[in-house]
Amino acid sequence: MMTLEEMGARAKAAARELASAGRQRGKVLSAMAGAVEQAGEKILAANRLDLEQAKRDGMSAPLLDRLALSEERVRGMADGIRSVAAQPDPVGQVVSGFTRPNGLRIEKVRVPIGVIGMIYEARPNVTADAAALCLKAGNAVILRGGKEALRSNRAVAEAMRGAVASCGLNPDCIQLVEDTSHRSATEMMRMTGLIDVLIPRGGRNLIRAVVENSRVPVIQTGAGNCHVYVDDSADIRMAADIIYNAKTSRPSVCNAIETILVHKDIAERALPAIKARLDEKKVELRGCERTRAILGGCVVPATEDDWSREYLDYILAVRVVDSMDEALRHIARYSTGHSEAIVTGSYENARRFTEEVDAAAVYVNASTRFTDGGEFGLGAEIGISTQKLHARGPMGAFELTSYKFIVTGDGQIR
Amino acid sequence: MMTLEEMGARAKAAARELASAGRQRGKVLSAMAGAVEQAGEKILAANRLDLEQAKRDGMSAPLLDRLALSEERVRGMADGIRSVAAQPDPVGQVVSGFTRPNGLRIEKVRVPIGVIGMIYEARPNVTADAAALCLKAGNAVILRGGKEALRSNRAVAEAMRGAVASCGLNPDCIQLVEDTSHRSATEMMRMTGLIDVLIPRGGRNLIRAVVENSRVPVIQTGAGNCHVYVDDSADIRMAADIIYNAKTSRPSVCNAIETILVHKDIAERALPAIKARLDEKKVELRGCERTRAILGGCVVPATEDDWSREYLDYILAVRVVDSMDEALRHIARYSTGHSEAIVTGSYENARRFTEEVDAAAVYVNASTRFTDGGEFGLGAEIGISTQKLHARGPMGAFELTSYKFIVTGDGQIR
Repeated sequence: MMTLEEMGARAKAAARELASAGRQRGKVLSAMAGAVEQAGEKILAANRLDLEQAKRDGMSAPLLDRLALSEERVRGMADGIRSVAAQPDPVGQVVSGFTRPNGLRIEKVRVPIGVIGMIYEARPNVTADAAALCLKAGNAVILRGGKEALRSNRAVAEAMRGAVASCGLNPDCIQLVEDTSHRSATEMMRMTGLIDVLIPRGGRNLIRAVVENSRVPVIQTGAGNCHVYVDDSADIRMAADIIYNAKTSRPSVCNAIETILVHKDIAERALPAIKARLDEKKVELRGCERTRAILGGCVVPATEDDWSREYLDYILAVRVVDSMDEALRHIARYSTGHSEAIVTGSYENARRFTEEVDAAAVYVNASTRFTDGGEFGLGAEIGISTQKLHARGPMGAFELTSYKFIVTGDGQIR
Repeated sequence: MMTLEEMGARAKAAARELASAGRQRGKVLSAMAGAVEQAGEKILAANRLDLEQAKRDGMSAPLLDRLALSEERVRGMADGIRSVAAQPDPVGQVVSGFTRPNGLRIEKVRVPIGVIGMIYEARPNVTADAAALCLKAGNAVILRGGKEALRSNRAVAEAMRGAVASCGLNPDCIQLVEDTSHRSATEMMRMTGLIDVLIPRGGRNLIRAVVENSRVPVIQTGAGNCHVYVDDSADIRMAADIIYNAKTSRPSVCNAIETILVHKDIAERALPAIKARLDEKKVELRGCERTRAILGGCVVPATEDDWSREYLDYILAVRVVDSMDEALRHIARYSTGHSEAIVTGSYENARRFTEEVDAAAVYVNASTRFTDGGEFGLGAEIGISTQKLHARGPMGAFELTSYKFIVTGDGQIR
């Protein structure tokens, strides 16, 4: 088995070749999509072995579902690669430029970052998405998935590597780490000089471990403690619809909401309407005192802990606030900076909310569920950044690039 | 003395106020410039004390020169702040935006990063530049300068804080760390959640220590092992002029060159001409075997170590290469990714060099000395990033911003 150090050196060399192979890069993604489809049976056979093992190891039903592939899901992977292929090429884009009085021409041009390290869990489609986005941006990628999906990931990666080679490019621009132990993740975090950026994708603990321990720069993704604030001027039916959608359409994802904040002057009318919608899906409510005074004993008393919980489940915390100021303070304190929404009829409050709330995506009168690479027009996403450095919100191929300045002259000196 | 934790909490609160105070922010920079000028005598008196102490401590002459202020240098500080003030406001700029088929409007808008931590050495003007650039971008800044300049930095920071307060803004958006021990730097590196990004500015050891130990995201600046490659098609006089300028106009800065690579087919004609220019400033040459065969025994034999040295002095390493490929390999191996130049008459080689060399700034037929915030039109710079994440090359106020997505609708759900 190759050492990670060797993989890194190969990835770096492959990235260098890839950076100046714009023409082949255009073709490689469609070849990868085709190869994944053609390898469908192999991928499904490998996935069946992963599933059997996972069942023996007692994996829960929802996780088994995330791990499981089908013909349709394999087609979905290929389509995902094709939709990345259809995006404009970010590399080589001239971002800005000007000519100095001395005739020196300065251009800022998008370039690949180099080598991206992905550390992720469970779902095998991340293997395809991540490789497609990295290659689209001219980067090499080192994929370190979870042990549960190793056979599936290997089959997907092999198909893609074959496609890369068939286009005359170095297949080492896609490499899968076979060692799925903690050790390999830790080693990747130390590979400064070989890996340019690490992107962890998965649960909160995985992400925290990478952020805290990595020497390689990290883009932090994922964790979403998202809120909807119902202003006193809100349309109650709209508020109920948005909250219902943002909580129940897919509770396990990071753009689902976990807490609602309701202005005291609308709480008595709004809360029963909201509860009626949420009852359709048997959402458990955990409320502050005032919420319970309005909705009654069916509401579990909320504790301090509830304001910072990411339930990722059919549970919603509810708090009545005295003012928009109190709502803004609550959000500033507990938000993870992912997605935050206000439902309001007030122009002024809408404006203030979008200005003051510090999150990747700030919504007025819409569901937080739209924070997504597909919805934001990126083709696919490699993750949703909750940090402010480099990239914020859904990240596509564009966010996997850097830039350099190209300065051309005819002998200028300073 | 306030703890760093308290300073961080105050900075965070001040940053939040500042983010939504666009109108006052416009005025505060010119007030800061005026305040620095008015406090000129106080600043010079403090600087004299720093200088006396530094002399007693045996500081070298070049460092004393960097530390010393004069009426002219104080005016220069104020002018620096004014030139930042004159730049367009990056905050609030709508970077891109579109409307989805469902009517949802998505805009990507520039916002401040939050709290910037600066860890820097010696020169007191960094205090003024950094504060101006951070505030221009709506950020609070925690300044941790070196102990040699503490009194000077304090006087400058006090003047600026007064100006901030006089504009009705919270002066805690500029704070100076009084504890200049290693401990305070180490503590800043752990202040995740309070400091959003750390920018070390100074010597190689300082920067390495911060990059290796910080949990707070870091923007790496500075170190420049820069090269000029003299292609076989180069105009020899132009090559000599560029090399002379890039080496001798200010050897102590990061955009000065440290090694030249000369194509073997031009070496016999080019090297004597280059040496003649460099002799004017008594530049010591350290050459490979072939260089010495051409230039003779006055050239010190170069060792492997010389290729990676940042001399920051009147010393230049010289290597004769067989081909442009060899030059590109040398640069890929030893470059710190700062500034790299080719001198060539060949269109093809110019194109290839700018495509393949992986550095913040890549030059054709011009001196590397132009890699500078002022020359690149940024007003001033907070540093020159040699990393690829977030910002690369000279960083001004624009590079001290992040963005968020503002999504407005009329009840859209997914």
